[in-house]
Amino acid sequence: MSESLYIIKISGNIIDDEQRLDAFLQQFSSLSGKKILVHGGGKLATKMADQLNIPQQMIEGRRVTDADTLRIVTMVYAGYINKNIVAGLYAKGISAMGVTGADGNCILAHKRQHANIDYGYVGDIDVVNATFLHQVLEQNTAIVVAPITHDGKGQLLNTNADTIAQEIAKALSSLYQTILIYSFEKKGVLLDVNDESSVIANMNKEQYLLLKAEGKIFAGMIPKLDNAFAAIDAGVGKVIIGQAEELVLLINTASGTTIE
Amino acid sequence: MSESLYIIKISGNIIDDEQRLDAFLQQFSSLSGKKILVHGGGKLATKMADQLNIPQQMIEGRRVTDADTLRIVTMVYAGYINKNIVAGLYAKGISAMGVTGADGNCILAHKRQHANIDYGYVGDIDVVNATFLHQVLEQNTAIVVAPITHDGKGQLLNTNADTIAQEIAKALSSLYQTILIYSFEKKGVLLDVNDESSVIANMNKEQYLLLKAEGKIFAGMIPKLDNAFAAIDAGVGKVIIGQAEELVLLINTASGTTIE
Repeated sequence: MSESLYIIKISGNIIDDEQRLDAFLQQFSSLSGKKILVHGGGKLATKMADQLNIPQQMIEGRRVTDADTLRIVTMVYAGYINKNIVAGLYAKGISAMGVTGADGNCILAHKRQHANIDYGYVGDIDVVNATFLHQVLEQNTAIVVAPITHDGKGQLLNTNADTIAQEIAKALSSLYQTILIYSFEKKGVLLDVNDESSVIANMNKEQYLLLKAEGKIFAGMIPKLDNAFAAIDAGVGKVIIGQAEELVLLINTASGTTIE
Repeated sequence: MSESLYIIKISGNIIDDEQRLDAFLQQFSSLSGKKILVHGGGKLATKMADQLNIPQQMIEGRRVTDADTLRIVTMVYAGYINKNIVAGLYAKGISAMGVTGADGNCILAHKRQHANIDYGYVGDIDVVNATFLHQVLEQNTAIVVAPITHDGKGQLLNTNADTIAQEIAKALSSLYQTILIYSFEKKGVLLDVNDESSVIANMNKEQYLLLKAEGKIFAGMIPKLDNAFAAIDAGVGKVIIGQAEELVLLINTASGTTIE
């Protein structure tokens, strides 16, 4: 059996809260085995855009990344957030390296093409450089990934962090026993959205399709879960959905929803 | 004889000019052998501080790095500038990885202590992690260094890029034949500050001390040259001072001032 690799996606609400982030990094650094942390944005990019009077254009609920917005997200994600997390991990006693998709060419993407909408400098992933990531991980160095990729022709691209986490997990599944963890505001996938005690502890595809057919899966969760099962189909060992604060419990399957 | 390693420091005026930077990266990528690029700031950090109404405090000509300023320089240097250079190098066909001193713990520093002045979050370098840099270079990957270090306890620190270049060159001198290149607005060290044709092509320590004693070295150059000779004394193979635009000529000692 190959070694475990944890790929953990954290999102904005934990990044924006210094104490919660610190507590999360404490748990992250306590995990044995190889690990990759993929972070999203947080409110700082939006706040900076406001302060710099750069209007944020939304099309169908998605932010359009114009040149000014790309500059801000590159600064905030790849600079401020990424480097503070790396420094924070050394304070917890573990080695870490922060990267964007450009560094070591680790995630190559292309500018999103859409028939009617120009999303601007948004990247869709072509390929993850498993060799590069593998080399770093084998130095017992955790990798911290900012959600910025490049197109190989000098253009940086804003890229969805969930997708980055998933593509990395898929690309490394032949080298490691991959465990992909999506941190989330709820305790896991709930049978009743209003009841945090209704977490579905385990789900395989059959059970998922049955629950979905019965209308028991909250609509907003369906794309996330479809993606999770697609990752499993592509070789990812396990997907866990739950709260970042419960990272160690999630990994021990004592909390959250485990999909395999 | 060990392999050559070029450590090249570029400063703000070239970073601020997209076309000049592109032409420089073209030359940089054409160099055979291992290479490290250390970049300074540029005007973007100052411009951002102005736009965000963060007053820049200067003490005796030195910028004080308060928490807000550290946030800006981390965003601009480690995010925007560093990642655009890395993406730009891939566009020229070479592999590159961008780092701060926190990544891979490659430059450990401490907050500057001064009897009377608090410079804020400014770092003085303790140690360069030669092992980490060596591993990356041996993958034939150029390293792009942003002038931000960390203290190992979670604190990022703003650090002088000239000093970073010098400390990296010293730390790697037992592994490579190191050539440290300081790019500069003038064509080299001039005998007559107003005459660009008066470049001193070569200088050893004896010649330097003689010229200095005769008052022929421009006062502003003395600290730079003292540092260059200190680097040579510490094992650096060669120091070259000249214009970034002439990088290939500098390396062929067809331009600039070569110190050895």
